[in-house]
Amino acid sequence: MQKRPPDRLNRALAHLAASPGKRLRPRLLQAAASAVGNESGKTLAINAAEAIELIHTYSLIHDDLPAMDDDDLRRGQATLHVAFDEATAILVGDGLQTRAFELIASDEQLSPQQRVDLIVCLTKASGFDGMVGGQGLDIEATEQALTLEQLKNIHALKTGALITAALVMGGIVGQANSAQKITLEAVGDRIGLAFQIIDDVIDVRSDSATLGKTAGKDSAAGKLTYVTLMGLEAAENTATHLYEEALGLIDGWGPEADKLRDLLARMVKRDR
Amino acid sequence: MQKRPPDRLNRALAHLAASPGKRLRPRLLQAAASAVGNESGKTLAINAAEAIELIHTYSLIHDDLPAMDDDDLRRGQATLHVAFDEATAILVGDGLQTRAFELIASDEQLSPQQRVDLIVCLTKASGFDGMVGGQGLDIEATEQALTLEQLKNIHALKTGALITAALVMGGIVGQANSAQKITLEAVGDRIGLAFQIIDDVIDVRSDSATLGKTAGKDSAAGKLTYVTLMGLEAAENTATHLYEEALGLIDGWGPEADKLRDLLARMVKRDR
Repeated sequence: MQKRPPDRLNRALAHLAASPGKRLRPRLLQAAASAVGNESGKTLAINAAEAIELIHTYSLIHDDLPAMDDDDLRRGQATLHVAFDEATAILVGDGLQTRAFELIASDEQLSPQQRVDLIVCLTKASGFDGMVGGQGLDIEATEQALTLEQLKNIHALKTGALITAALVMGGIVGQANSAQKITLEAVGDRIGLAFQIIDDVIDVRSDSATLGKTAGKDSAAGKLTYVTLMGLEAAENTATHLYEEALGLIDGWGPEADKLRDLLARMVKRDR
Repeated sequence: MQKRPPDRLNRALAHLAASPGKRLRPRLLQAAASAVGNESGKTLAINAAEAIELIHTYSLIHDDLPAMDDDDLRRGQATLHVAFDEATAILVGDGLQTRAFELIASDEQLSPQQRVDLIVCLTKASGFDGMVGGQGLDIEATEQALTLEQLKNIHALKTGALITAALVMGGIVGQANSAQKITLEAVGDRIGLAFQIIDDVIDVRSDSATLGKTAGKDSAAGKLTYVTLMGLEAAENTATHLYEEALGLIDGWGPEADKLRDLLARMVKRDR
């Protein structure tokens, strides 16, 4: 049996590798693994970090498809279905999801219990009760007016769940105690929402060249965002408040959490 | 956070549940778990069996999409993108894959080691090195003439790998010894190929009403099949020979393997 993807899928994977994105989720995961006091946390987290990035990447590929958000530009280059074709984009997304769980399940640096805990966390965050469910709500929402609460719920599932999972998965790798895990989850909930609010702010303020993806798309599509619901200034203030809350939650943590603090700051203080 | 998929995804899942298909892979998995001599194998295998069926179901949903095989009929009812829309079909397929790994990872009837072994087996069989890779080759193949060896390779990846995985996963649940696992893999390789050959035979002989999916589609599309490459009679003889080999491999197994023997027979002696 052959041991690598067929030529077309390989070329599509190379296309993706050529513009790797910000790798926020793997960096959060590794920072959380170190932050809970496990010195080798970052090294131990390599497979789990790669896995969460693969889940994020697969979701972008499928979200960009013509039947979904129909986007041509991602990370500064043509989306996969534009550079190749829709069938390739569907298959590559499917295969990346599979590969994510394979990476964790086969990670012999971690105990089998850690591996199943990581997979349970990642599946809950990315499946029907998380990212996929949020995307489903998002599709339904384009047909109706949304309240701020509904918008928050969509974002919590679609984007927030995976960001929270990155932190909690870091905790699992770093063998966090229960209190640390609860804190990481609370940090994730706040910074995930702040991150999405800032995304909306940037979507209004930026242009496609800076962004590496289509700018002003949500507002042009008449889609409700935090900015349209709250106004620009209130949206920015809310994001700052959530960020400060998140930071406060790990106030008592030592210098081993500095990398995590730094990442949280970058998630709200950015222009793309 | 809400704990169930949004309304549209729920309705799509209900649509799928209304016509469950033959459930061949879960039945093979459970039969293999019993066949290796573990009396409670069948009960212990419930989550793993459900998981492999979810992987198979997600692959059908995505394969039926307009960008892939563009099929309107599956298991006697409208395919998901016809009954709903393409976005829903993409998302439901994605979520079913995620759910498969969640089911195994959270199965507390099995040891963490068994769970990671099951996930490694299922990911290898269904990802780039298996089902997804085979589908990728299949797409490329429609553009060029195939040899019999190339066709076998596509089928081994696209269909055979998951059938073999069903048997090996049954072995993992039933705590098979190494020799039993190797035998189950060899049985899977043979019966998987036989199963696909019979599929081609049926595609030529049957009509859509009996089949529950579009009949004569492969030959109408000028797609190479075992029947077009070998002729009808030789294809049937090859399938019978492979089935007899598979049966011979478990000749020394006791009556606890009778259910497995019965399933192997049904895989080649069928008209739909």
